[in-house]
Amino acid sequence: MRAVDIIKKKRDGRELAREEIEFIVRGATHDTVPDYQLAAFLMATLLRGMTPAEVAALTEAMLRSGEVLDFSDLPGKKVDKHSTGGVGDKTSLILAPIVAAAGVRVPMISGRGLGHSGGTLDKLEAIPGFNVNLPLREFREVLEKCGCALIGQTPEIAPADKKLYALRDVTATVESPALICGSIMSKKLAEGIDALVLDVKTGNGAFMKKQADAENLAQLLVDTGTRMGKKVVALITNMDQPLGRKVGNALEVEESVEVLRGEGPEDLRELSIELSAWMLVLGERARTTEEGRDVAAEMIASGKAAEKFREIIRLQGGDAGVVDDTKRLPQAKREAHVKATRTGYLKSVECEQVGVASMLLGGGRERKEDAVDPGVGLIVEKRIGEPVREGETLVTVKYNLDQKLPPAVALLERAFEISSDNVKGPELVHKVLGAK
Amino acid sequence: MRAVDIIKKKRDGRELAREEIEFIVRGATHDTVPDYQLAAFLMATLLRGMTPAEVAALTEAMLRSGEVLDFSDLPGKKVDKHSTGGVGDKTSLILAPIVAAAGVRVPMISGRGLGHSGGTLDKLEAIPGFNVNLPLREFREVLEKCGCALIGQTPEIAPADKKLYALRDVTATVESPALICGSIMSKKLAEGIDALVLDVKTGNGAFMKKQADAENLAQLLVDTGTRMGKKVVALITNMDQPLGRKVGNALEVEESVEVLRGEGPEDLRELSIELSAWMLVLGERARTTEEGRDVAAEMIASGKAAEKFREIIRLQGGDAGVVDDTKRLPQAKREAHVKATRTGYLKSVECEQVGVASMLLGGGRERKEDAVDPGVGLIVEKRIGEPVREGETLVTVKYNLDQKLPPAVALLERAFEISSDNVKGPELVHKVLGAK
Repeated sequence: MRAVDIIKKKRDGRELAREEIEFIVRGATHDTVPDYQLAAFLMATLLRGMTPAEVAALTEAMLRSGEVLDFSDLPGKKVDKHSTGGVGDKTSLILAPIVAAAGVRVPMISGRGLGHSGGTLDKLEAIPGFNVNLPLREFREVLEKCGCALIGQTPEIAPADKKLYALRDVTATVESPALICGSIMSKKLAEGIDALVLDVKTGNGAFMKKQADAENLAQLLVDTGTRMGKKVVALITNMDQPLGRKVGNALEVEESVEVLRGEGPEDLRELSIELSAWMLVLGERARTTEEGRDVAAEMIASGKAAEKFREIIRLQGGDAGVVDDTKRLPQAKREAHVKATRTGYLKSVECEQVGVASMLLGGGRERKEDAVDPGVGLIVEKRIGEPVREGETLVTVKYNLDQKLPPAVALLERAFEISSDNVKGPELVHKVLGAK
Repeated sequence: MRAVDIIKKKRDGRELAREEIEFIVRGATHDTVPDYQLAAFLMATLLRGMTPAEVAALTEAMLRSGEVLDFSDLPGKKVDKHSTGGVGDKTSLILAPIVAAAGVRVPMISGRGLGHSGGTLDKLEAIPGFNVNLPLREFREVLEKCGCALIGQTPEIAPADKKLYALRDVTATVESPALICGSIMSKKLAEGIDALVLDVKTGNGAFMKKQADAENLAQLLVDTGTRMGKKVVALITNMDQPLGRKVGNALEVEESVEVLRGEGPEDLRELSIELSAWMLVLGERARTTEEGRDVAAEMIASGKAAEKFREIIRLQGGDAGVVDDTKRLPQAKREAHVKATRTGYLKSVECEQVGVASMLLGGGRERKEDAVDPGVGLIVEKRIGEPVREGETLVTVKYNLDQKLPPAVALLERAFEISSDNVKGPELVHKVLGAK
């Protein structure tokens, strides 16, 4: 078998055999296929696409490139959630303790933020002392003890993805549904889970701007997971405005704690409960999503979810006191306000630009190697459809370095559109795919 | 400017600016853009195509990546010919002396054979002592002295092409018309020529199997050359059977000498005179192709073309005696015959397989680094449309190593189709593009 023949076949739009895809993935893992051939393969794949069978073969080959965790000896179902990423999306920090408190195990391996979109690991690291770099042995111990563990990517899991993702990033081949699916599902299915709930975001703050694209990707993810014997459900959810009010690492932990205490903004609480409900259904802890929602709400109301979060933080070396006193989280030193220039209703938000503004303050990364400032971020005071008075604050900006403020403010000033007409806010969950 | 943004733009089918193309070509030349980004760019270009303006910018950037020769101080026009390659295509060895004998200078930089198709350099090197590796200074001296010089690619000419071609070869991106055009034209226009005659082959022994593809490529080559201020004409010619009877390096020199002596097979003589005629027209030595044909025929009949060939060989260190005694060329030691298994008419030839058979005997290269055996090759005894008797020889095989014979014979036995019906042979020149 020669890489050039496989590239040519894909280039010409023909379906690759499982062995051919395995050859490429093995080549990526062991450096036996040079980067330039992998790059040509990735571009041909992006432009020609892959059949469902090819995507499944790709995902499986990537999954098997590394260690596949096995928690089958631990009682009960193991369920995870994956989000395609957005602005202010902190549901992982909320649903993981909810679902674990209800008795379904959540072995969660997450990523870091890049560009306008945040990452669960960065948020967790805003909690003083929290260690996301547990070795796999300790990951298992924490999962066994408290039903949930939250760590970052390890070198043992799907090394082919590490290699291919780095190449995709610099060869303009990130946006291929087939490659996205291989990347997401190979890592998630390596977690030793029985089921997965996907939150596929769509809207101007999402990776997939168009709902049709989000649905196509969601269907591919569901089909691929199902082919591989997992229960998978995908929710297509809205990302035309930040989720919740707070954007930034410590601020998002703060808002997550608010929801776990039964407070916090309605949209965030609603989506967290909805995703938890699906995880409880797939985890066989609830028969219906209605029942799942009730269980989730009960976990919050009883304080069990908040207590679970304390337990996870403690087991991973963090300061569990933040759950009771969010002032223990890193705080930005300065504050500024972006105000409405007219009276009316908030019509739209350039959600991606809000994410970029938070990144510019130091809350996110432009490049993978950048460090993040945990304390900075934004509090978005208005949601689409809400009335706004001239001079009222639209966004409170929390920052540390003076020179980082003006570029962020410049973006934010242009990101909010106010109209005279009353407009309706977008629905939060557009669609659910993969449910029986 | 970032390579990844340029790749993305091409990936999305948008037209690149001249500066963006220059950035990529500079990156290829100076290794400032890594191979994996070049590979992704090449695949995106192959699948998305390029506009004529982009192709011109690519060609010019590749041309300017190295030295551009200037022979404007030498009197008269400088004209070259380029063929897209085929089986038995030895016209360069014939037309260069014809055209130079008539007073138009021919500065010719050629390539080596690869796969089923032969290369001018390999043929020239079959002449004992002939040196194709002249430095550019000596290339100029020979051109100045006798009106023609025949050398191989030098590191000074279009280094971007050297880099990009090597990558195309291993990333399945050879077949892009835009990239082919950039590769051919950057090298040819660096020769310091005023005009170029292109022989774009089509048929089952050509790179472009379909005439429409050949015409598209030819038009692109003509347009690109014209944009760059050169007179360019392209002939679309047939390659459904070998050109002439002889295939193999020394054998093709032998047949070229036959034509220069006024002998040789009709098709080869006709095409050589036709291409010479166009070169003489573009070189302003003839007003019409009719006149050009007469001049070319006169150069043969008078012995001036043969004498010019002797002169070139002598100046490049070779044994000019081969023009009078082809037995001085390397000869294969053994001979075999592939015979007709039925009586009828030769209906078709798998021309590419004939080329591969010659390669398998050692006459060509499977890989770039392979050495060639100058003496081996084939004499194809029948042309399409000719009557064939059962048991009559179709191909005489000239070989040296016993173990190389059977695979070549196996291909040849399947390469000739004989039918009961009388068929007409293909026309030699399908079309001429770019002529006023």
